[in-house]
This record gives sequence, C-alpha cells and structure tokens, in this order.
Amino acid sequence: MTDSTTQAVYSYLGPAGTFTEDALRQVDPEHLGRWQPVTSVVQAIDDVATGRSTHAVIPIENSIEGGVSATLDALATMPGVRILGERLVPITFHLLARPGTTLSEVRHLTTHPMSYPQCRTWLAGHLPEHDFLPAPSNAAAAASALHDQNIDAAIAGERVLDHYDLEVLARDIGDNRNAVTRFVLLGPDRGLPAPTGADKTSLIAELPVDEAGALLRLLEQFSTRGINMTRIESRPIGDELGRYRFNIDLEGHALDARVAEALRGVHRFSPNVVFLGSYPRATREACEPMPHQTNDDYKDAAQWYEALLQ
Amino acid sequence: MTDSTTQAVYSYLGPAGTFTEDALRQVDPEHLGRWQPVTSVVQAIDDVATGRSTHAVIPIENSIEGGVSATLDALATMPGVRILGERLVPITFHLLARPGTTLSEVRHLTTHPMSYPQCRTWLAGHLPEHDFLPAPSNAAAAASALHDQNIDAAIAGERVLDHYDLEVLARDIGDNRNAVTRFVLLGPDRGLPAPTGADKTSLIAELPVDEAGALLRLLEQFSTRGINMTRIESRPIGDELGRYRFNIDLEGHALDARVAEALRGVHRFSPNVVFLGSYPRATREACEPMPHQTNDDYKDAAQWYEALLQ
Amino acid sequence: MTDSTTQAVYSYLGPAGTFTEDALRQVDPEHLGRWQPVTSVVQAIDDVATGRSTHAVIPIENSIEGGVSATLDALATMPGVRILGERLVPITFHLLARPGTTLSEVRHLTTHPMSYPQCRTWLAGHLPEHDFLPAPSNAAAAASALHDQNIDAAIAGERVLDHYDLEVLARDIGDNRNAVTRFVLLGPDRGLPAPTGADKTSLIAELPVDEAGALLRLLEQFSTRGINMTRIESRPIGDELGRYRFNIDLEGHALDARVAEALRGVHRFSPNVVFLGSYPRATREACEPMPHQTNDDYKDAAQWYEALLQ
Amino acid sequence: MTDSTTQAVYSYLGPAGTFTEDALRQVDPEHLGRWQPVTSVVQAIDDVATGRSTHAVIPIENSIEGGVSATLDALATMPGVRILGERLVPITFHLLARPGTTLSEVRHLTTHPMSYPQCRTWLAGHLPEHDFLPAPSNAAAAASALHDQNIDAAIAGERVLDHYDLEVLARDIGDNRNAVTRFVLLGPDRGLPAPTGADKTSLIAELPVDEAGALLRLLEQFSTRGINMTRIESRPIGDELGRYRFNIDLEGHALDARVAEALRGVHRFSPNVVFLGSYPRATREACEPMPHQTNDDYKDAAQWYEALLQ
Repeated sequence: MTDSTTQAVYSYLGPAGTFTEDALRQVDPEHLGRWQPVTSVVQAIDDVATGRSTHAVIPIENSIEGGVSATLDALATMPGVRILGERLVPITFHLLARPGTTLSEVRHLTTHPMSYPQCRTWLAGHLPEHDFLPAPSNAAAAASALHDQNIDAAIAGERVLDHYDLEVLARDIGDNRNAVTRFVLLGPDRGLPAPTGADKTSLIAELPVDEAGALLRLLEQFSTRGINMTRIESRPIGDELGRYRFNIDLEGHALDARVAEALRGVHRFSPNVVFLGSYPRATREACEPMPHQTNDDYKDAAQWYEALLQ
Repeated sequence: MTDSTTQAVYSYLGPAGTFTEDALRQVDPEHLGRWQPVTSVVQAIDDVATGRSTHAVIPIENSIEGGVSATLDALATMPGVRILGERLVPITFHLLARPGTTLSEVRHLTTHPMSYPQCRTWLAGHLPEHDFLPAPSNAAAAASALHDQNIDAAIAGERVLDHYDLEVLARDIGDNRNAVTRFVLLGPDRGLPAPTGADKTSLIAELPVDEAGALLRLLEQFSTRGINMTRIESRPIGDELGRYRFNIDLEGHALDARVAEALRGVHRFSPNVVFLGSYPRATREACEPMPHQTNDDYKDAAQWYEALLQ
Repeated sequence: MTDSTTQAVYSYLGPAGTFTEDALRQVDPEHLGRWQPVTSVVQAIDDVATGRSTHAVIPIENSIEGGVSATLDALATMPGVRILGERLVPITFHLLARPGTTLSEVRHLTTHPMSYPQCRTWLAGHLPEHDFLPAPSNAAAAASALHDQNIDAAIAGERVLDHYDLEVLARDIGDNRNAVTRFVLLGPDRGLPAPTGADKTSLIAELPVDEAGALLRLLEQFSTRGINMTRIESRPIGDELGRYRFNIDLEGHALDARVAEALRGVHRFSPNVVFLGSYPRATREACEPMPHQTNDDYKDAAQWYEALLQ
Repeated sequence: MTDSTTQAVYSYLGPAGTFTEDALRQVDPEHLGRWQPVTSVVQAIDDVATGRSTHAVIPIENSIEGGVSATLDALATMPGVRILGERLVPITFHLLARPGTTLSEVRHLTTHPMSYPQCRTWLAGHLPEHDFLPAPSNAAAAASALHDQNIDAAIAGERVLDHYDLEVLARDIGDNRNAVTRFVLLGPDRGLPAPTGADKTSLIAELPVDEAGALLRLLEQFSTRGINMTRIESRPIGDELGRYRFNIDLEGHALDARVAEALRGVHRFSPNVVFLGSYPRATREACEPMPHQTNDDYKDAAQWYEALLQ
C-alpha cells in the first residue's frame, strides 16, 4: 500500500485565495489531501466523475445572489457524482489596492459579477463615480489590481491577502453582514453517507410538460409525507422558454422511509429526476419527522398491509 | 369427501321474500348452498366471523336512502369478515293487500322505514290520508298485511308474492324507477380475491381528532396516487358529536401498487382503519390507472431507488 | 296591536313527549309561542315555508345514529327556510311499562328505530330474548306500551312520563351516557342573524358529476380560506348509485369575508348548492379566524387590489 | 403644445448593438421615440420611476440562462413601474474579430457572462484552449475586440456589426438554435392595459417565514381558481440562506375576476407582494378560463351571495 493510492485529491474552484478555498479548509483542516484548483465547476465535477480526483468542492448557493447557475446546470446534466456534505462560509468583502493607493484615487474597480452587487450600497455611498469591470474570480480581480495599471482596486475576501500583496482600503463593505455562501463536497456516486438524524437530501426534477398544476403535484409528493423543503430553485431546461427543472433540498435522508417513498413518487411523476445525495446538514440541526411519518410508522403500516394479504 | 363439510352456508338478512333474497339468488343462482335467513346484519356478520356460516349477504347502500347504517356500523366494529363481492338489485315496490281489498279502503299502511320514503310521491297522490306503521322488513310488512286486521296494505317487492298470498293493488309505485340497492357478499378475513382489472377496495377510516383539515389530508392519500374514490359516506363514531368515521370505496385492488401505498398511508394517518376487502365491482367496468400510477411505474421507481443505495 | 299577529308559532316533530319537545322547551322556555306538533319534518318545514308557522324545531343529527336522513333530504329539496339556531338535547333512555309489569315479563318491546340501536348493549345483557317492533316515535311507543296488549314495554325519554302513565322498569339504559341530539330552529329564508363571533354556517352542495377528485376540490374551497369544517355528511342524491350531496357545517358567519368568498367559490363549483343559514353555535365557543383570514385582512387586500387599478 | 412634451423616451439596457436594442426595435419599429441607452437595469427602472423616461426595455429571462437576476431583484425592490408588454428576441451568436484575424489566432475571448455558457459546445470543439474574459455587455465585448490588443475575439449578436467594424469568424455558434430572450416594456405604475383575452399577469411574492408548506399554499391561491402559472422563479431575499421570493407569471388579466380574487388571496398570505402588471402575452395565444372560472361565473356567484343577505 502506498500513500499516493489512498490520498484524497480535492478539485476546487480556484484559483487559490477564493472563498472556495475557505470551504476546502473546513473540509480538510489539516491539509492532508492534495488541493487541486480548477477553473470551472464543470472541470471539478468531471475530475470526480472520471476518477482524477476523489472529491470536489464547489459553491452552490449564495445568500444574496442566489443559486450558482453554472453549478446547478452542471449537476443537472453531468452524471457520476453525489453530494457528501455541505459547508457554509461567511462572506466578507474588502476593497483592496496596491500599497499607496488612496480611496479617492479609485476609479476602475474589478471583482466577480456575483460579488459586485453585494456591495452596491457601500459603493453608491463611497465610490459613486467608479467604473466596474467584471473578473472571472475574486482572486483574479486581486491579481489585476496588483498587476494591471488600468485597474485601481479589487473587491475580494480576506483570503486573497495570503497570495497577493495588496492593502485594505476599506474593510467589510458588503451590504449584508450575514452574507454566506454554501459549498458542497462532491464524491463519486457510490453508496450514501449513513443517516445522522440531521440530514438533507438534494434532487433535481423536471416537470412533465403537459400537466396543469405540475409543480403543485410535485410539491405534494413531499407534503403528503410530511417532508419539509428547505430550498427550491428553478433553472430553465434550456430547450424552450417556460420549461424548468427544480433544484430541491429536503429535510431527511434517503434511507428514511418517508423520504424513500417521496423519492419513488417523484421518480414516477417526473420525466427526469437526478438524485444528488443525502448528507449531514451544515447546521447539524436535527430533523424531527412529523407525526405519523417516523420509520416506525412506516414499518407498522407495512406490517399491517402484509397481514391483510395472509 | 362429504358434501356437508364443503357446502356453502349463506346467512342473509331475512326473512325470505326480501330484496336480500334477490341478491342471494344472484350469488347462488342454482341454490347449491344452504340459505340461512337471520334477523339482523349483526347476526349475519357474527355467523361468518365465528364460522357458523361460510358467507353472508347483507345490504350496504340504497341509491335513494343511502348507506344502511346498521351495516356500516357493524362492519366498522365487528372484526373477522371481508367483502368478497357486491351485487346490485333493482328495487321495485308494489302496494299489496289481502285479496278483495280496494285502493280506496287502504288507510293503515306498513313497510320498512327505508322503503316508505321511496314511495313518497305516489303515496301523496294516491293515498293522501293514510297512516304509516313501520315494519322490521318488507317481508314482515307483507305478513302483517295478510294476518293483522289493523293493517290494510303493505309496500314490498315482487319476491314476497312467492311467500304470501297477497294481491297487487298498484305496481311499481317507487318514485325513482332506477332505484337500486347494493348488497355485499361477506366471507372470513383470510386472503383476497385475485385482481380482475375491474376491482374495488373498501375501507373505513377514523379521522385524527386534533388535525385541522384532517378529511382533506385523508383524501390526499388517494389523490396523490391517482386513485379514484367511488363512494364516501360518513357515520358518527358515537362517542361525541362531531366525530366521524368514513366509509370509502376506491377503484383498484389492494394488490395494485398504488392502492397498497395508499392503504399504508391511511394506516399511518388514521387512528383506526378497517380494511374491508378488494373484490370485483358489480359493473365489471375496468379501472385504468392514471398516468405514472401503473404497477410498472411503481416497480421502476422501486428499482431506481434501490440502485441509488448501491 | 294584537297578540295574535305577532305570536310565534312553533311547528315541531311531535307528538308531545319526544326529545324534540325538550329542544323546543330550550327555544321557548316560558312557552310564549304556540306549540304545534306535526308528524314529519316535511310537514314542519312546509309550515314555515308557507307561513302557517313562524318557526320549526326538528332533529338534524344524533351523536350515535348520525344524521337524520329525513331532515337532511328535506332541507336539500324544500326551499323557503333557513336555520336560525341550534339546540343540543342530552338523550337518556328508560325502559317503560304499564304499572305492575316486571322486567322478566318483557318480551315484546317497541321504540323508534333510531332509539333501539342506542340501547343494544343493555338489551343484550338484560333482555336477550326480546322481540323488537319499530314505532313511529318514542311517544307513540309509549302510547303502545300503555294501550296495546301485544306490547310489554317501550323505550323512551323522561318527557313521555308527563303524558303517559307508565312505570320506569330500568333507568338510563342507553349504551352511551353522553348521547346527544342536535336540533335546529328554522325560520323563513329572509335575512340573517347578526354575527356573534361564535357562529356556524350550514350548506348543502352537490358535486359535479365528471370531475375527478371533486370532493377534494370542494373541501379546498374552505381550506384555502382557513375555514374549519365541523361536520360533513353525505346523502345520496337519489337518481343513481354513486351520486352524493354533502351536508356541511363551517365555523364562521356568511358575513365574515372568508366565509363569503368560500360560499361564492362553492356556488361556482357546485351544480347545486343550498345555503341553510348562519347562526350562533349551541356551545357559544368563539371561532378565531386563522392568520391572514380576518375581515381586516380581506379589507386590506381589497383596498390594495383597488389601488392597483388606479 | 410641442412634440417634445409628448415624445416617448425609451431607456434601454445599452450600449447600442445589444439584443435589448433588437427588442426596442420591436417596440418602436419606426423609431418615433427617443432611445436612451443606460448601463444597468437599475438605471432603466429609475428613469421610468422618476419620470426621466416614459418607458424602459430590459431583459427579464433567457431560455438558456434563466432569469436575469439583476432585473428580478430590481423589480422586487424598486417601486413605481409596471410591465406594459413583453417581446421575444431570438438569440444568435457570432464569433467576431478585427479584420484579418483567423480562427487559429484566437486565444483571448470576451463576451457577457450570460452569453458565454450558451456557446459552450461550439467553443469546446473549435477553441478548446481559449481564455475567457467577462465583459459588461456583448457590445462592450465587441468594442474590446476592436480596440484592446489583449483581446482576440468577441461573442456577440448580428446587431453589433452596425456599430463596430468587425469581421465574422464564425456564424451562429450558440448551442441551442432556438435560444430566445424575453424583454419587458416598462411604464409608470398608473392604470392597466385593457384585457385582450390573451394576457399575462406578473407578480413577486415573498413567503411567510414560519409556515410549513408555504410555497404549496401560495400555489393553491392560483390552482383553486383554475389559474395556470407559466413561470415561477425563485430569488433569494438576501437576508439569510433559505428565504426566497418567487417571481410568478400567470395566464389572465388582473381585471379577470379569477385573477383579481387570486391576487387578493396572495396579498393576504404573503408578507410582501409586488404586482408587476397585466399585459398582452408576446405569443398572442388566448387564455381560456377553466370551467366555473369565467367572469360570468364570478358574477353569478356574487349575485347569489348578495341575494342570500336580503
């Protein structure tokens, strides 16, 4: 046995210095695995699906800007991976510039397009005249602020200061001090983490085309079994206007009887359903089943039914 | 082998000459079994539950007067029996009297309390001044009309003329020419008739006390699985005003996957559920499952789910 | 002004001595009106509809035996009346006989067919060998017990002892000590009693023939507006098996905005709906509207909507 | 009176040459109004709300990339405007470069971040080694391709060729030939366009925090009134993870009785609802109300209810 065969390899949405690195730091705090920055979520997912990496860490949802479209669309269409866990990273933005720059000199500003609108209020108050140039990542924005003479400042998180020799012109300029991004840890689609009593189940379901009230009927698959839905997000399927798939997070684990029955119900109803996994929720908050919906209730009902057939 | 050990014994709501005898004639047209008239549905059910009879035939619902309360209440509270089939008997009422009686002489009239209101219109037009005396059965009414000098006429069906020497004063006096009574054939609660593709399933479910919208949630157990309900009838549980149990007939057989899942769902939800049986419907009308609700859909969904766990 | 023009006249299901008289005693405790016993609920309703009486008192529901079919069917088909109030009468049965009769001599027993099954357990224990003859009312049963030599005893309530010189052979023989019958006070269909904050609304609705899940959709008219249903009872429409109308009691008054909207919704949906009235509930228990469903919520929403059109 | 006081002024998401210009061309084909390019949807909306412009044209939804977050968030939070109409613009992408450039020379590529993923397949096949730089708009990308020596090519639509002297290196490189973007025409929030029989109604509703199944209950406001939903899209409210507002398009006009009642129902239920307008749908496809849901059905029900109160 060699270390190299067993060492975890984490593909993560890089470059180094992004908030994704913060999430990975939560996953592998002692840096025992190999960290592999990649340039897209598609690349990260493909690494896991093909076995080049054992895991991937990618952002899935921001509390201000919503679902990460690239992630949601890639998970809907790329088989071979499963969510093993989630991590929450508080998002704090700083205004960064080359040493010696003053706030009044800032005119040309860069950052990632999902970061920019999160600082709208501060920018309107302090830099009403700035120009905005989108950057592929906050770390790339920091690099531009350091090296590109046309750029005066970047918005990015604390972490980039480990990698780029920039000064903080203004701290914590985000509009919402509670902003947080949710990241998922992916692995290959084999097996399921054991239930912990505080789990979530994620899936993506397409609606049948020709059914009136199709979304209502999809949601009834959960409500009839007393299952609470913690997130629902629509994304266009892409073939024509008006066709959506829905990204759904549920409380409970696929091995819970009520979730199992709901998943089978969704499979019957939906022309296309992707099971993304069951995993411990980041908050560790326990999920109490509603009355009549415990595993014992399901077991009793199954035994009662079997006895009818004798 | 002796005939006596295998001969069917049918308890039926007597006496001879009632509409129940017509139903039994449909069940056993060649009179191969022994026909045992009893005086109450409780007696008929008890005969089967204790093995004194192999079968019972009792009325359950009349198209005009509704559910037969005694039957519904007995089925809800007496275990040990199961519905094996149903028979529909057209209900035609005649006005009968001792030979020589004329219509104008009829003043004191008797019949069963469920028969009387079904002839309301005819009676209002032809015998506006009559007195009504309830009788325990239409056959008993006929007996009174023959033997009791205080009674001038009885309302009963054709069949009593086989047993009582009465004359028909007026034929077919029911308000509704399509009136029909539904009877059930009961047997012991062992096994289930095989599915025929045109089956019904009957059950009785009590609602939880403290759930708002409890009936709605009970019905969702069926609608979520695309199951059509052909009858729902409420009966008081009897302990206090406002508490009901519901008698429900569904399209489909307990061995159909969608019905099986719905039955288990009702068992979880209801504090008290009685499975009455799955049996061929009298009309032989086939039950097409709705889209996504065939046995194959359930099988596919179960296989998909199992594969997720590998 | 003359008394005769203003005196209330109460038609009630007689004869004197029935439980209906107890209900009327609650309505008119000082006997200021004229009490008019009638022999059927149809007669009582017709008296009010045609103006012969100002009010009627009739039984609508028994806690053991369920809805009074004759009342439910008459209310569904006879226009011109409205429920103004309800009264609850505790039901206590005694076994009564001619003075000198002993329990062991009782063989032929009479009572109303709705009273008989309520004493089943006592009778099975104390008079296992008796014969039962149905009577048109408990008071008529008492009369038979007094005058008819073929009858040994009657089951009836305390009240008949005011009218018939019978002895109590056994007191309080009902199976359920909490048995109660609900009576309604009817008046002409003009105007509505003012809301009291503790009201009920009664209606009868037929389901559309050709809609799957029609009952579910009817109930949604109430649940969508947060309206609690305190009673639902089915009765056959009578034209063919499988067609029902539903007798429904709701919490709230027709002048409550949520009830008004639900009533209009039922009217759109149902091919035939009968509004029976809004009236104070017997228990005086207040009906708190659910969140978002107060009259103020409806008023705010209407004002918001009107402002949109400006 | 001068023309200038009545001339329409259209703020649109510029610069000239974007797909938004194509939408504006549909709105004002003879260019009778003044066309005012702005740099953000916030600016466009603000122009109308404050009266600087009479109208605005902004993108709201792309068939591939989904809702335009900036538009959805601005409409949710900026009062004073209303949707008057919608336009569909087919989306065709070309690869554009300075004259003389060949495909094999393209390494640094720019376009808007919503355009880039729509050409993923073509780029993977033809330019597997390229670098991507996001641009604020497709027109800005074209400008960079013309003037910035670090940029080799841009992806943009046909229209930019009217404004920039670029060559087409490859035509129609989008992955989906049916891609379309939906734009809305905004005006001030006064009055409503008259119903045409082929209308849509748009609104944004927040869910109550503490209600289980809140989304289901929101959707029931529409399903109970037989209203078809053509779009539902979630956006985070932004204060914490797991709180969403829903952008909803319905068939029908706010002056249709069923839509009016549903809007009032949503207003009662939702802690925050924004009515965005009723307007003719781009496809001109008529909206048939479902059975029981026509304006006449509502009128009949209202008259019936009023008569009850007499």
